[in-house]
Amino acid sequence: MRGLGLADDRALHCARLFAETTRDGVYTHGLNRFPRFARSIENGSVDVNAEPIKLAGVGAIERWDGQRGVGNLNASASMQRAIALARQYGIGGVALANTNHWMRGGSYGWQAAEQGLFAICWTNTLANLPAWGAVSPTLGNNPLVIAVPRAGGHVVLDMAMSQFSYGALAAYSKRGEALPVDGGFDSNGKLTKDAAAIEASQRSLPIGYWKGSGLSMVMDMVAAMLSGGLATHQIALDPFRETGLSQIFLAIDPGTVANPQELDQIAVGVINSLREAIPAEPGKPVRYPGEQTLQLREENLRLGVPVDPEIWRQISSVSD
Amino acid sequence: MRGLGLADDRALHCARLFAETTRDGVYTHGLNRFPRFARSIENGSVDVNAEPIKLAGVGAIERWDGQRGVGNLNASASMQRAIALARQYGIGGVALANTNHWMRGGSYGWQAAEQGLFAICWTNTLANLPAWGAVSPTLGNNPLVIAVPRAGGHVVLDMAMSQFSYGALAAYSKRGEALPVDGGFDSNGKLTKDAAAIEASQRSLPIGYWKGSGLSMVMDMVAAMLSGGLATHQIALDPFRETGLSQIFLAIDPGTVANPQELDQIAVGVINSLREAIPAEPGKPVRYPGEQTLQLREENLRLGVPVDPEIWRQISSVSD
Repeated sequence: MRGLGLADDRALHCARLFAETTRDGVYTHGLNRFPRFARSIENGSVDVNAEPIKLAGVGAIERWDGQRGVGNLNASASMQRAIALARQYGIGGVALANTNHWMRGGSYGWQAAEQGLFAICWTNTLANLPAWGAVSPTLGNNPLVIAVPRAGGHVVLDMAMSQFSYGALAAYSKRGEALPVDGGFDSNGKLTKDAAAIEASQRSLPIGYWKGSGLSMVMDMVAAMLSGGLATHQIALDPFRETGLSQIFLAIDPGTVANPQELDQIAVGVINSLREAIPAEPGKPVRYPGEQTLQLREENLRLGVPVDPEIWRQISSVSD
Repeated sequence: MRGLGLADDRALHCARLFAETTRDGVYTHGLNRFPRFARSIENGSVDVNAEPIKLAGVGAIERWDGQRGVGNLNASASMQRAIALARQYGIGGVALANTNHWMRGGSYGWQAAEQGLFAICWTNTLANLPAWGAVSPTLGNNPLVIAVPRAGGHVVLDMAMSQFSYGALAAYSKRGEALPVDGGFDSNGKLTKDAAAIEASQRSLPIGYWKGSGLSMVMDMVAAMLSGGLATHQIALDPFRETGLSQIFLAIDPGTVANPQELDQIAVGVINSLREAIPAEPGKPVRYPGEQTLQLREENLRLGVPVDPEIWRQISSVSD
């Protein structure tokens, strides 16, 4: 990170966010994303020295300008600011304009949960998803993160509004494997499990068809309107120059309304009710959001974190 | 409403919420729901005289107890309290425990938007949806509402976490019509468009499969934990005695961070980008969430609001 021009403390924080993402098993958005991140700095989409500045806001909600700085640092700073507002007011929000790809959205959910707060955050993206009833992409896949703090393991949902990312579609089509459920339309407008056909048509599917389509759109509106930043339709379509994103960070400090024992008891009750559900495949219990992350984190810390040698070569080739 | 025991001003407000829902074309949750509402009062699930009381909270987030009062009045009061907090702090939140079915969730989104605020609210419900990977229902369909205020027509998303409600499934199976997309599993565990088969298996589908399953679960956790109320697994399974729900109401006043012209310009830009999408069916442009509501409202106000004569008979039979 220092080799890419980040100042020492920022380099450390940025590297930690990338490394923790790979440690947690979210390989697509950790180290494997580094070459693309480096390219976005080289082509000027990301300014390694820019830091977010507050533009407006009195009270518990604020508008910040990310100044096209490093996406994960901007997002982490914004969530931390929302947490500080929540510690003061019970709930706090930051609307961040003019920022860059935040890499793993879940990072900012874990960040809040580790400090004992609930969090809701989302980002818009370039247009990569057709609205329900349309063939051309005008919506972003706009990942949504909701975090619930819990002593026995935080519950962190991190989900995009597309049923499958283009990265996932590419992996299936490379393996010649069918998707587990319909993931989009083929070029004849028929729903299909054929990933290659969806890559060809560029008509991937919003979650829940018309429902995820509507949710993606309102998330884009709230993020762009409150931050004063770009909406999806205004964001450059080149994935290597996707910049000027708008994001929302909300944090809630339960301390003023609940005590820790009560919170834990309710959370454990919900998780136990899930465990008691009759599984569709015997012996395969239902998992809660974030559970796999905790398992992979433990496994990777115990056995070592798997890193693609070619990615490692590229990371090592950036000299300090 | 007075015939059911509601005091004058509360009767007026409650009746207005039912009537506006039917006026807006959401027939399932308006007057058609009245007989079931009346029954929930008669069987003691709803206390017509109870009003919500504040239990805890300093600053912009508060915990309230709905005291098993009238669901739509409790929800309306809670959103109005979140709006008041947002006017003071920029953002405000109410976690409401021990309440009843809020009827149309969108009502509280429209309520905030009409006052110029953004809103996010949701409710848990009884268990009516199997988690992804389970055959028995342990999740609620937990409707989520997001409202965006806009001079040219508010954008209000109101969506449950199930792909189709059991009401919708019943309508399709009665007509002998196939669902437009898979809506659940049949008794052999195969995804199906056969509504009757899903009614038989009770395995309806969360939106986006594993994604909506995770979203429904975290919504339940946030609502129950912040309100101190019941989680889905604790709510009585009899739909006529579904009570003790937990709900979240968040409102954001954009006034401290943005000016109205800027907000309107961004909102119009997003809606126009949707209009410019190439439709899948020529001549059938993509709609935004809430657009159909505004069309049906206009049509119903112009031509008269359609009311089922049998429902009208039942309403009229409750004497003052």
